[in-house]
Amino acid sequence: MQGGDSRERKSGPFPGAEGAETPLSREDGEERKDRADAGANASGTASVVGAAAEGPRGTSRRGISRRGLFGLAGAGVAGLGIGIAADRGVQAVAAAGAPAAGSTVYPFYQEHQAGIVTPAQDRLHFAAFDLAPGATRADLISLLQDWTAAAAALTAGRDIGSYGAVGGPYDAPPEDTGEAFGLPPAGLTITVGFGPTLFETSAGLDRFGLASARPDALVDLPHFPGDQLEAARGGGDLCIQACADDPQVAVHAIRNLSRIAFGRAAIRWSQLGFGRTSSTSTSQATPRNLFGFKDGTANVKAEQPAVVDEHVWVGAGDGPAWLTGGSYLVARRIRMTIETWDRTALREQETVFGRTKGEGAPLSGGTEFTEPDFASTGNTGAPLIAATSHVRLAHPAQNNGVQLLRRGYNFVDGNDDLGRLEAGLFFISYQRRPSQFTTVQLALARHDAMNEYVRHVGSALFAVPPGAARGSYLGAALFA
Amino acid sequence: MQGGDSRERKSGPFPGAEGAETPLSREDGEERKDRADAGANASGTASVVGAAAEGPRGTSRRGISRRGLFGLAGAGVAGLGIGIAADRGVQAVAAAGAPAAGSTVYPFYQEHQAGIVTPAQDRLHFAAFDLAPGATRADLISLLQDWTAAAAALTAGRDIGSYGAVGGPYDAPPEDTGEAFGLPPAGLTITVGFGPTLFETSAGLDRFGLASARPDALVDLPHFPGDQLEAARGGGDLCIQACADDPQVAVHAIRNLSRIAFGRAAIRWSQLGFGRTSSTSTSQATPRNLFGFKDGTANVKAEQPAVVDEHVWVGAGDGPAWLTGGSYLVARRIRMTIETWDRTALREQETVFGRTKGEGAPLSGGTEFTEPDFASTGNTGAPLIAATSHVRLAHPAQNNGVQLLRRGYNFVDGNDDLGRLEAGLFFISYQRRPSQFTTVQLALARHDAMNEYVRHVGSALFAVPPGAARGSYLGAALFA
Repeated sequence: MQGGDSRERKSGPFPGAEGAETPLSREDGEERKDRADAGANASGTASVVGAAAEGPRGTSRRGISRRGLFGLAGAGVAGLGIGIAADRGVQAVAAAGAPAAGSTVYPFYQEHQAGIVTPAQDRLHFAAFDLAPGATRADLISLLQDWTAAAAALTAGRDIGSYGAVGGPYDAPPEDTGEAFGLPPAGLTITVGFGPTLFETSAGLDRFGLASARPDALVDLPHFPGDQLEAARGGGDLCIQACADDPQVAVHAIRNLSRIAFGRAAIRWSQLGFGRTSSTSTSQATPRNLFGFKDGTANVKAEQPAVVDEHVWVGAGDGPAWLTGGSYLVARRIRMTIETWDRTALREQETVFGRTKGEGAPLSGGTEFTEPDFASTGNTGAPLIAATSHVRLAHPAQNNGVQLLRRGYNFVDGNDDLGRLEAGLFFISYQRRPSQFTTVQLALARHDAMNEYVRHVGSALFAVPPGAARGSYLGAALFA
Repeated sequence: MQGGDSRERKSGPFPGAEGAETPLSREDGEERKDRADAGANASGTASVVGAAAEGPRGTSRRGISRRGLFGLAGAGVAGLGIGIAADRGVQAVAAAGAPAAGSTVYPFYQEHQAGIVTPAQDRLHFAAFDLAPGATRADLISLLQDWTAAAAALTAGRDIGSYGAVGGPYDAPPEDTGEAFGLPPAGLTITVGFGPTLFETSAGLDRFGLASARPDALVDLPHFPGDQLEAARGGGDLCIQACADDPQVAVHAIRNLSRIAFGRAAIRWSQLGFGRTSSTSTSQATPRNLFGFKDGTANVKAEQPAVVDEHVWVGAGDGPAWLTGGSYLVARRIRMTIETWDRTALREQETVFGRTKGEGAPLSGGTEFTEPDFASTGNTGAPLIAATSHVRLAHPAQNNGVQLLRRGYNFVDGNDDLGRLEAGLFFISYQRRPSQFTTVQLALARHDAMNEYVRHVGSALFAVPPGAARGSYLGAALFA
């Protein structure tokens, strides 16, 4: 009967009138979390709920029935301690064995937003929002405040609100939609960004008094050769990137954040994606894209703090102070013409990539992580890595040292009218300056042999503010 | 360098010309598999690749480089034994610890097709196909033969074809598209069905000489009250249900089977879905649909063989002999108006379902698996489980004992023009007779309070032939 049987409330007054009975009140819990989080934030690393302190939502705090809470209270301080640890994902002393899958928690209140250097989770739900006609600056601020509070709860594996999915008044809509009730945090991260139109519409309208705060670099990306952009798949005043190891957890996050926005903002476009799955036995291997090749071998890694500082985080003096510690997010929906690709010879495929398909090694030799040797030539004198190959054109060495932190996902959105898979790569990259992406993409758009097999149909750029401080909200400095 | 580095072939002749060098020839392997499979088929249960004998595709057999194969040959019979065990998923003696996630293999050659009573995997990719204009009976037979061979390989965690993703001639397209290269079998099942139009088009055309073999029950489902069917989301000559615990594995299966069909059949419509995830710590719990309720509590379970025989498998004498041991598959794309639902009170939500949201217990009391008591009334004299509740209308007790084996998945396909999630339930049920579904759906379509929040937009019915015998192919008896 533990775990959220709500029928018992029918025979009594609504729990909404009984807040004082709840030993784990919100205020009480928040204070404890402040202390518990301090350590996690300092290291900036993920914590894991130990197997001995399993705490999926619906069984740890939010979903505990009143009967369950009384039981916990009876167990005294030790019981409460476990409840808090499970809530916040603080590393608990596990009795034995590995932590359960899905129990990873990434701290929300950090210097930088999570979901950027965070190890890429398995699933993505990305949504771009437009503010409602008539929305005010106060609406925007309140929305960001509400999103911040909700994101902090969701990423900790908690339901939305004070009562969650099933604990609220019986004659009111539940605060949380409930489809993630009982699921663990699943490594959820929520990352919020601001589009150019938030600052000034294409018609030059400054809806929220933000035009003077717009970073000079936050303008629409240029049109690249070959772009076939669809208006319905680009732009947006705001964006949310939700990543998790469970699609239901990522979907639940976007759905509830969208619900919170009702009347203030609505989804403009969205994209679901999948990538490396934690259920594989080779979870440390580089995942493959839908061309069947390993993707992201030469990516910026979180374990390279100097590289991340140089190429990912906006530095002091780069632009307006409110964005310091943030980043720029580029999203590109890249449709792959899978069926055409599948009819090309392995030689053509490897020549296009400049890497082998199996191992992912550069065609100049070695293994996956061997640096490509762009100068080496074969018997014919031609370069082993073709001039038009993807690996050459995208490589930092060919782009004045420019690096991107790529974080894309594969997508398959059914099929088109001809029965071809509507599939491809939802490219996401984070960079200190949008010009980093523009530099690389311009080289690719002009010369990449892969262009025969891909089509860029969606594009967006967002400024991603730094992380929120506890008690504040995402983007607060923009409104200071 | 193991694991499929294909560059080495550049300096020598193509491996395609060197078949005799390969110690694990296809013929050799097949014979071994015949013996290895016998035990697994007898029990009809899944086998698991032990941790000590990990064999994701690309590292066990297909993807082993020539150098790797020579190494294996040097290791002698013991080495070969491990290779075969990994390939076929036969339980190997694990050195220690649990099997790696994703290593589940369901035998393909069985009395019944897998993917029906198989425990529901996490992910779905479903596709309906139409035969190409001008396709002949011989084309249809060859397609089913090719699909059978490919499905046997894919479900065992092997690449398609003799050479797979990276082992083939360098100047030919790879036989396998490669995006699952290195991934484990992930519990993949592939289930093939035949639509009414395969036997006779709506214009009465008997394209393949099958009209006389059509089961009387294999006709379009009736129009149900409230149906808002879209032609582009229903029907189909053939269907393939691919289920796996990894979306990339399910997508890889549909993509390669679609590729094999090129020129003979093309995808008419398709649907991806997700459900319970193996990465949760509560993987044995009933999963939740996007209304936030547990779905499928009273489902037919594989552990009830008598119930399955009575309600799922087509029996001898039910219709044409070729379908004995098969089943009927109903697919319905049910769009949920999520945003409206989310604005209703918890009381309304539970009244609509007839169950509690948290625990999933019937409103007549008890826990999730307590039988609903439809007669019990509350203080007011009204039934505790409303007359229009979903649980009452769908329950076998209210439908002359009719039961369905439901196997549906949640879906989120982005958003619509108004920013609402394009989301819902892709309902799949298996039953001995289509009338079982019709009986239940008619009751629901007429009276279910849930109709206010759902819209049936896609519909299809398929006859699913029994499993293929080794050496034969799916549906062979239809052409005998």
